[in-house]
Order: sequence, then C-alpha cells, then structure tokens
Amino acid sequence: MIEPVRPATLADGDLVALVSPSGPVRAARADAAVGVLTGWGLRTRLGEHALARNGYLAGTDEQRLADLNGAFADPEVRAVLCLRGGYGMQRIVDGLDLDAVRDDPKLVMGFSDITALHLALWQGARLATVHGPVAAQLDKGAQSPTALGAKTVLTSAVPVTVKADEAESTFRVRRPGRAEGVLLGGNLAMLASSVGTVHMPDLTGAILLIEDINEQPYRIDRMLTQLLRSGALSGLAGVAIGQFTDCDAEGEGPSAEDVLEERLGAAGVPVLGGLPIGHGDQHVAIGVGVPAVLDADAGTLTVQPVGRA
Amino acid sequence: MIEPVRPATLADGDLVALVSPSGPVRAARADAAVGVLTGWGLRTRLGEHALARNGYLAGTDEQRLADLNGAFADPEVRAVLCLRGGYGMQRIVDGLDLDAVRDDPKLVMGFSDITALHLALWQGARLATVHGPVAAQLDKGAQSPTALGAKTVLTSAVPVTVKADEAESTFRVRRPGRAEGVLLGGNLAMLASSVGTVHMPDLTGAILLIEDINEQPYRIDRMLTQLLRSGALSGLAGVAIGQFTDCDAEGEGPSAEDVLEERLGAAGVPVLGGLPIGHGDQHVAIGVGVPAVLDADAGTLTVQPVGRA
Repeated sequence: MIEPVRPATLADGDLVALVSPSGPVRAARADAAVGVLTGWGLRTRLGEHALARNGYLAGTDEQRLADLNGAFADPEVRAVLCLRGGYGMQRIVDGLDLDAVRDDPKLVMGFSDITALHLALWQGARLATVHGPVAAQLDKGAQSPTALGAKTVLTSAVPVTVKADEAESTFRVRRPGRAEGVLLGGNLAMLASSVGTVHMPDLTGAILLIEDINEQPYRIDRMLTQLLRSGALSGLAGVAIGQFTDCDAEGEGPSAEDVLEERLGAAGVPVLGGLPIGHGDQHVAIGVGVPAVLDADAGTLTVQPVGRA
Repeated sequence: MIEPVRPATLADGDLVALVSPSGPVRAARADAAVGVLTGWGLRTRLGEHALARNGYLAGTDEQRLADLNGAFADPEVRAVLCLRGGYGMQRIVDGLDLDAVRDDPKLVMGFSDITALHLALWQGARLATVHGPVAAQLDKGAQSPTALGAKTVLTSAVPVTVKADEAESTFRVRRPGRAEGVLLGGNLAMLASSVGTVHMPDLTGAILLIEDINEQPYRIDRMLTQLLRSGALSGLAGVAIGQFTDCDAEGEGPSAEDVLEERLGAAGVPVLGGLPIGHGDQHVAIGVGVPAVLDADAGTLTVQPVGRA
C-alpha cells in the first residue's frame, strides 16, 4: 500500500486559508466559517477572490487558481479549506502548483466538486486530504456533528470510524465482506469526469468512496457505466457509498439505490451503503488517500488519520 | 483521411429492422414509423423486444443486445433503425457483434444516446452511419423535413449540405475558417461518457459534431472540460454545433452558448453553430464517419454520402 504524505495536524493559533476554487459563496456563510474556526483557536485568511462571483464560478479561472496556489505557497498557511463546491475545480486543476504542495504539505478539506482537487493532490503529490464539509457548511454551527467531525480530523491524528446509518437511503445497498485499501474518490460525477485525464487514480486495491447530489438514476448509471467500461473499477477492493441526495427518478424506473446495487454488483467486491458522508444533513469528515478498512458485515468504514501529530 | 466502409443505399422492397437498444418507445410511435417506412416502399421488421419496457430501458440488456445483434446478423436486413434514444446503449455496446457488422455492412440510423453505437461501429468496423432521427421521430409525418431528410440519406448516395439557421440558439457560436475532415460525434454527453473507453475515437483531423438536450450550462462546461483535459480535442480540424435544446441555466450565469463559445474557443479551430441537427423541431440527417467540409464563413456543413449507390 502506498504510504501517503501526511501534513501536520492543526494546532492552536495556526493560520487557515479559506478559498473558493469552484462556485461562488455568500459572504454570510464565509463569515460563519470564520466564526467557527476562530472559536477553535485558529486564525483565518480569506482568499482575495473568495467572495467573487462570475456566473457559476467564484471569479475567473485565473483568480480562483491564484488564491489556491497562493495558499499552497504561503509557509504560514497550515490548512487550505475550500468554502464551497458547486462546479469549477476541473477548469483550473491542471494549473495547480504541485511543487509548492510537495515542498510544504498542508491539510486540505472539501468535497463534492472539490473531489477534483483531492484527485489532483493524490496523483501529483500523494497527499492525504480531508473529504469533509466545505467551510460554508460550518454555518451549521460549531456544535453541529458536521463541524465537530471536521475539527477532529483537522486537529488530531486519530482514526475515524463511520457507521452505516439505516436512516440513509443508500443503507440497503450492501455486498458482504471486508476490504482493506487506500480510500479514494468522493463525488461520483467528478470521478466519471476525471476518466481519461491525468488525475484519474489507479484504483487497484483501493476502496472507492462515492456520493452525489441532483443526479437522476440514469445519470448515475451512465457515470458508473463509464467507470466500468474504462476499466477503472476492475481491481477495486471495495466500495463505500455515501449519500445520494435528491437523486430520485423523474418518472417511473429504478431508484438511485437500484442502480448502485446493480452496477456495483458487477465489480464483485464488498460494498457498504448508508454512510453519512456527502450532501445530506450530517457529513462526517474522513481522510482520502489514507488506508481504510471497509467492513460490510459490521457496517463500518474505519479510516486512518490524515494529519500527523 | 480514412476511407469508411459504406453500406448500400436502400432500394424498393428492402427490409428495415426497427430496434430499441436504449430507452422504451410507445407502440403508437413505432406504428407511425412503420407506416412512413412502408410508404417509402420498404418492408419493416420490429425487433422482438422493441416495445419492451424495463424502467428507463427498453427491456433487459440481454434483450436489447439480442435484437441489435440479430438485426446485424440477418442478411435480409439492409438497414438498422433505432426507434429511440434516451439512455442504455453504453450498457450493451461492448457486446456488439462486430464480425457480423464487418461481414455484412448495413445502414444504421439514430442519434442522441445512439451516438454510443455510431462510435462503436466507427471504432470497430470503420462503418459510415447515419446521424439522423430515431425512427419514433418519423411520427412527425412522411412529409416532415425530418423524415424527408432521413429518406434522402438512406436511399441516395448524394452529399448533404446543412446550413446554419439563425433561428437556432447556437447560431451565434462561430469561429471563422474552413475545415475538412471526417465528421465524428453526435451527442456531447455520450462523447464525454466515452472518454477512457475503447470507443472514444481519435479526433485528430476530424470535424467534431456535438448536440445535446436537458443539460445545464455547467454540465456542458464539465463535459467539454473533460474532453479538453483528456486531450481528445487537441488535433481537431473543426467543430459543427447542432441544437442544444432545453439547456438553459437554472439561475444566473452563462448560457449554453456562452459556454460553448468559451470552451471551444480554446481548441482554436473553425466552429460553426446553428446547425439544425439534434433535439430541435427540425433534425437534418447526415453521415458520420464520412468526409465533410465545414465552412464557417459560408455557414455550411457539407457531408459526403453514407451509402453507395
């Protein structure tokens, strides 16, 4: 198993950069994030263009990339938190300053569209990153499970165990067995959109994490079919399924869960659905690019820490 | 330029197979197609499972594939017309009986989801195919421009010139110049979903045709970004843009046309929008896998015939 590069966990007084490399974020949500992070004893710095708005993008490609690379290059910054997902990371991810990342590995957190950044950092620097809330979601409050989970992963070097929750619609998608491997992935649409690019990871021996929002079942079918047909899923060790939020069919036909069950059945590996990871009410932060154990019989996913103490 | 395999054009009394390899079709629409084709002096045979319904699929994968391969293997069948697009071709396209296709090349027509079939037949047999209406669209009537255009391409070996129409929303997307090359492509979502599979064609020197329906601008951005990042568009000769139907933004932000303009500008080749090809009211049938000339200054796309006389 590849040993990832682990950044240091956050300590009191550390500086955290807040950037918007994808979609635009409302100022009130950024303010809320600053409030929560300050409450944790951290200092924050908002990217110059973090509140910019350019259609569905938070500023031009140049502006978003400048903020992102600026954060990675600044030796004072110890974590780069993405304020929002949405769309836009893929447009700039090939311009990432990987030398800066390798020279000074930092904690990176986000999910959804930010999956493209996780993949780039894994492919380009073998950096372990945090698949956790975007900072705008800290507006759920400092005591929300989402915020507390993020704090744990960012500030301590302990493994996290996530339990499948029967309240999640994907809970019924399960194939028995136990798998060990590096946990990789995140947003299914971003994974499918990475096929054929330099950022598509080799998933041989890996546990694949997937979640999504606002994708009809036939679209989920299309994405999984592309991944299957490209050969990306042939060497998988297991699949960890998070939330598939607002993914209902418009008319009759199979549900998102039916499609996940059928398409992933073809991979013939342990599958664990129902994990509270994704666009649902709760979002448990975990590492990606780190070793994990998927136990579909026990209904748990245990993920090694991202940061070193 | 690669010389494609050209099937014979249809003659009076020829047998045409009607199949549903993707989504389900209503019986009334299949009946209408049979009526129009019979009126052209052709005989028709409905695939055994052509009217089957299995969620968003027209029957199981096995049923749809059996109908498709059965049509290709039958020496009496001279054309394989797909009744509907929707979704489903990619699920079965790797099971295509390419030996049968190569042994006895037939005319094949359809578009949208059927793009996956066009790509498979091009990659596997260098077969020239018809990017034209799905047979269910013949319910517009025998005298509709859509039906008459399809009849021309299926029954005669003449080039077709399509003129950009200022009534089309993509009319304003244009980059001057003239390009010659094999015309390849069709539905943008299907092209993006083919990246990383054996059916993604080498587009070096080719004219790329794209159209789509029901895709928000950020999704069009995502698909074009995947194609760009995968390198698929680096050697393009030109781009022919058909209809982008119901592709409006939900909120503020760029339109589908803005996105096409911006993303395709990066390819630096002649681009001609406004072609009445796709999911709009008119759908002009043309060949794919055949040489074409794109003249963005004159506003025309001239496509060589699919069939030989």
